[in-house]
Amino acid sequence: MINVAIIGASGYSGSELLRILLRHPEVSVTTVTAASSAGLPVDQVYPALTGECELTYKPLLPDDLAGADVAFVALPSGEAMKIMPKLQTMVGKVIDLGGDFRLKDTAQYEKYYKHQHASPEFLPGAVYGLPELNREAIANATLVSNPGCYATSIILGLLPLAAQGLVSLKGISVAAVSGISGAGRSSSVDMSFTELNENVRAYKLTTHQHVPEIEQALAAAASGAEVTVSFVPHLVPITRGIHSTIHATLTKESDARAIQDAFALYYALHPFVRVRKNPVQIAAVTRTNFCDIHPVVEARTGQVVITSVIDNLVKGAAGQAIQNMNLMFGLKETTGL
Amino acid sequence: MINVAIIGASGYSGSELLRILLRHPEVSVTTVTAASSAGLPVDQVYPALTGECELTYKPLLPDDLAGADVAFVALPSGEAMKIMPKLQTMVGKVIDLGGDFRLKDTAQYEKYYKHQHASPEFLPGAVYGLPELNREAIANATLVSNPGCYATSIILGLLPLAAQGLVSLKGISVAAVSGISGAGRSSSVDMSFTELNENVRAYKLTTHQHVPEIEQALAAAASGAEVTVSFVPHLVPITRGIHSTIHATLTKESDARAIQDAFALYYALHPFVRVRKNPVQIAAVTRTNFCDIHPVVEARTGQVVITSVIDNLVKGAAGQAIQNMNLMFGLKETTGL
Amino acid sequence: MINVAIIGASGYSGSELLRILLRHPEVSVTTVTAASSAGLPVDQVYPALTGECELTYKPLLPDDLAGADVAFVALPSGEAMKIMPKLQTMVGKVIDLGGDFRLKDTAQYEKYYKHQHASPEFLPGAVYGLPELNREAIANATLVSNPGCYATSIILGLLPLAAQGLVSLKGISVAAVSGISGAGRSSSVDMSFTELNENVRAYKLTTHQHVPEIEQALAAAASGAEVTVSFVPHLVPITRGIHSTIHATLTKESDARAIQDAFALYYALHPFVRVRKNPVQIAAVTRTNFCDIHPVVEARTGQVVITSVIDNLVKGAAGQAIQNMNLMFGLKETTGL
Amino acid sequence: MINVAIIGASGYSGSELLRILLRHPEVSVTTVTAASSAGLPVDQVYPALTGECELTYKPLLPDDLAGADVAFVALPSGEAMKIMPKLQTMVGKVIDLGGDFRLKDTAQYEKYYKHQHASPEFLPGAVYGLPELNREAIANATLVSNPGCYATSIILGLLPLAAQGLVSLKGISVAAVSGISGAGRSSSVDMSFTELNENVRAYKLTTHQHVPEIEQALAAAASGAEVTVSFVPHLVPITRGIHSTIHATLTKESDARAIQDAFALYYALHPFVRVRKNPVQIAAVTRTNFCDIHPVVEARTGQVVITSVIDNLVKGAAGQAIQNMNLMFGLKETTGL
Repeated sequence: MINVAIIGASGYSGSELLRILLRHPEVSVTTVTAASSAGLPVDQVYPALTGECELTYKPLLPDDLAGADVAFVALPSGEAMKIMPKLQTMVGKVIDLGGDFRLKDTAQYEKYYKHQHASPEFLPGAVYGLPELNREAIANATLVSNPGCYATSIILGLLPLAAQGLVSLKGISVAAVSGISGAGRSSSVDMSFTELNENVRAYKLTTHQHVPEIEQALAAAASGAEVTVSFVPHLVPITRGIHSTIHATLTKESDARAIQDAFALYYALHPFVRVRKNPVQIAAVTRTNFCDIHPVVEARTGQVVITSVIDNLVKGAAGQAIQNMNLMFGLKETTGL
Repeated sequence: MINVAIIGASGYSGSELLRILLRHPEVSVTTVTAASSAGLPVDQVYPALTGECELTYKPLLPDDLAGADVAFVALPSGEAMKIMPKLQTMVGKVIDLGGDFRLKDTAQYEKYYKHQHASPEFLPGAVYGLPELNREAIANATLVSNPGCYATSIILGLLPLAAQGLVSLKGISVAAVSGISGAGRSSSVDMSFTELNENVRAYKLTTHQHVPEIEQALAAAASGAEVTVSFVPHLVPITRGIHSTIHATLTKESDARAIQDAFALYYALHPFVRVRKNPVQIAAVTRTNFCDIHPVVEARTGQVVITSVIDNLVKGAAGQAIQNMNLMFGLKETTGL
Repeated sequence: MINVAIIGASGYSGSELLRILLRHPEVSVTTVTAASSAGLPVDQVYPALTGECELTYKPLLPDDLAGADVAFVALPSGEAMKIMPKLQTMVGKVIDLGGDFRLKDTAQYEKYYKHQHASPEFLPGAVYGLPELNREAIANATLVSNPGCYATSIILGLLPLAAQGLVSLKGISVAAVSGISGAGRSSSVDMSFTELNENVRAYKLTTHQHVPEIEQALAAAASGAEVTVSFVPHLVPITRGIHSTIHATLTKESDARAIQDAFALYYALHPFVRVRKNPVQIAAVTRTNFCDIHPVVEARTGQVVITSVIDNLVKGAAGQAIQNMNLMFGLKETTGL
Repeated sequence: MINVAIIGASGYSGSELLRILLRHPEVSVTTVTAASSAGLPVDQVYPALTGECELTYKPLLPDDLAGADVAFVALPSGEAMKIMPKLQTMVGKVIDLGGDFRLKDTAQYEKYYKHQHASPEFLPGAVYGLPELNREAIANATLVSNPGCYATSIILGLLPLAAQGLVSLKGISVAAVSGISGAGRSSSVDMSFTELNENVRAYKLTTHQHVPEIEQALAAAASGAEVTVSFVPHLVPITRGIHSTIHATLTKESDARAIQDAFALYYALHPFVRVRKNPVQIAAVTRTNFCDIHPVVEARTGQVVITSVIDNLVKGAAGQAIQNMNLMFGLKETTGL
């Protein structure tokens, strides 16, 4: 059995990790930490887990992590980089669900996250945990940086096209909508039911912190070509799910067939990406680790429109982190998912 | 008092017309027709109107319309063109909320609506009823063709830029989300609560019938320049509202200020468009005839991102139709709205 | 014109007062106060009011109220009783939307509200502002205590039966569901979208503070008979509306007719109560001041089941307060509503 | 492996059976039938199952069922009784999710279901499939009649009290709310998103077909005492879940402790019922087979208020049916759930 610690287990990503790992056949969750809920039984904060989980949240103390084979860090961005120096001395493998180790360029980090990086020495060794891009490197990594939720959906929608040079990588535009759980377990008026129900609104127009991570991953897939993405995220009144709609300009005459083939080829051996002939929908991936993708060529405008859906808490966070864990421990990628 | 007939008054657009017109100070609703509900009191189908409306739905018989000063037609697209020859002999002014008289080019109509046009002789005289584009022509029209809901939101988001040549009119991309009332009063499994709740899905990718109407209106504003728009509509689980997110490429170095000025200037005398400095949201326009617009320049990518919101049943249908009626009868544009 | 001050105008009840009063033909809103939003323009907090309201929130200073003909107090329960002594010296008529002046018995107040009453000297003169029970007294009052939202829905569902002795007043049971706006503008995790969406839960089982107010009003209607109500409120994921389901035991053989007649008679001259032959629904009263009621006799069990719906922010708060204001100023009860 | 056939597999209960059984370690689903979708691959109707299910819906032909060890019937009430004579010759064990075999008294059946019973000869042998009431009989049954969704929630909320005589069994009143999936996969306007969203309404007041089944089960638990329940079901805008609120009169002085003890004792060995000290909520049981129950004594009125929640598609339908299957095949009750 793999002994697992979850650091920051009382938020939505942390509790989703717990929900899935409790049923994972090769895992034993030994420690769950949470600052504000320390001392409370897990099932008091998440009554759905009553009878399934006897753990109690602890404060984060390094000694409690001794014996863990892997630690998942589900803290707000900016926290993981503070604890990483100590954490890596205690636990051999770390999977960080936040944004601290995703960007190779600290200047980009500081521009989008609005604070300095506290432990840049980990950046060279951190592997960006998108299995459909970096499967082998993940298997050998000791620090995996799990992708952002929007980023997962958008990168997967463009990877085959970037890899084969089928679209212009400058001037890609994306509008994506997210369920509210993506904003975390929050006590602000802005996140209250009455403010969000029967409402849709964009936020962080052109400034969202997933932009550089998307550009970095697509550039890697395209052998370093320059990539610019204009991205607008939106909140819609659902709990789970991301739907991304991507417009890109075809680089040459192409037809639906060529695009469809590029997707089919790229994802043939990736079990969690399903390329669809019909429009995708969030409900088809809810509570699963799948990403469903539907590319459409519009000959009239010379564009390809890709729609891509995931569950933000599963393929966009906890599920993908467990997919990474499976790879890091030599398990079948789909185990427990 | 203006005597009003509503043809097709039992659908959502028709009942919204009724809801607003019952409180309009210059209007008396004299006739409401509905095929399937003929013979039923209005308040049996819409209990919210109990005590506010004593009318009974009638079948559509031309003689019943004698005496009406204006008829609103809220039938499914394809129906208005069949009755228009007779209707215009009975009623001096007609406002059609469907798509039959929006496109000047019957080839475009037949491509997007998938059937032949039955009365093209009305097309030259029909005025596209977007007051922010055609206020004077509307005031003098006998047949006004009310814009589509998505089209209203998108055209208003681009009009000032098209008029001043501030963006490239080829390669505009739009992703818009709509509340479910936009699909009409429907009995299909696809429109059932369980299929739509906690779900988001795109539909009619690149083939929606509002595309040619958007391109036609923007071309008119841009003195006939060629316009191509790639448009993806989506359904989100709310009842009312449209949120459009528009990406366009700036034609030259421009800053937020220039774009903001173009919007401020264009809409200075249009009471129902509010140009915003902060991100817009559907909830701010629900049950109103306002369109809220927020343009953002992204210097890094050379794009402008415009977000635009309306209530699809008000500014996107019934409210705009009444705004047009006000203009046609010489009333203040905002009367009763 | 009646000069109106709204104290506590930035919450949901306060902003609903503002929304309705801005269109009331006999009213001018002169002052709006709000503690946390003081200094902000109203339309910054409620963008929906942009272009309709030029006011700025002020801190609550007695001198600012000079010249007001009436003050609405929309503060959390416990606040109005602190300011009432000063307030009544400044403004001749006060309508309090909170719970401080509803109960004649301070022991009941302290039991359910969990703190002492600060100004019991106002209780004898305060009139319980349910026009369907106290229309004349309201017209002559200087301090009207507006009923609670649940209480309005439940009392109206039972008034005719209590007045005519048609049901046993002991052992009435009520289950009611409320939209989330009833909880106020809140920043707690419990009121966040993700916690409430796709969820239903009861709260304050048997201990809700509207219980004594319901019992007091029904006892008054029944000439002082003893009344006990067992009440369970629930939260459901909608923004507005209350649906109450009431079970009471018939006192003697009775049929649907007798019950229906009692309702018809009692409410014949009350314009905002609609007695229905078909099941009621929240959507039929949303954004209106109506209360729809549907009584059903179940002969098999000897019970009458009454369902009753209101909009918690209108008939359950702001609308009823304005209905009271209309009565207090000799206007038609329905003016502006 | 147990070979399973699902008859009526394209509705919500049928597809939920499929979703759970596909992961059940002891089961192989061999046949799925569906009238309207016959010939379609399952994953075309339920895209969420893509990659998890290769089956195609077949028309219902008896020969296709040869070899099945058990058949689940998930047809609308009234259909199972027509096919049962033939079905029991083909398949040794049948679990019917509809209402045809729940009531021992055909007069009650005909009163509530509004048609004659076609195969009353099966009623004596049919076992009411509530494991918490009939675990042993289920284990030995060849025909199990799975309880109704509301009935499951309400009976479980009262069983310990009925068994110990702690409440009066006459005059119990219940108000329950259900998610919309309980109404089945439907194409009526009444079930459309726009009609149900932001709305709550009661239906079948006092006439719901689960009433006699509740009374029959409680009478059995109470050694045949007479039981009358006044029941009002409601629709609320969520997809899954039932919340029942039950009022019953205590038979003698009792305190919260005695009631709590009765629940704890009764359910000590029933793994899917969790007796709670805090108010229950639907979200805590969604997609699980749990029933959470919270009893509260109100000394002031002499009543006990029980709130009880389930997922209508799991413990209220497919999950409970699989729990019954586990018992019928000698498996651990919780296997695969």
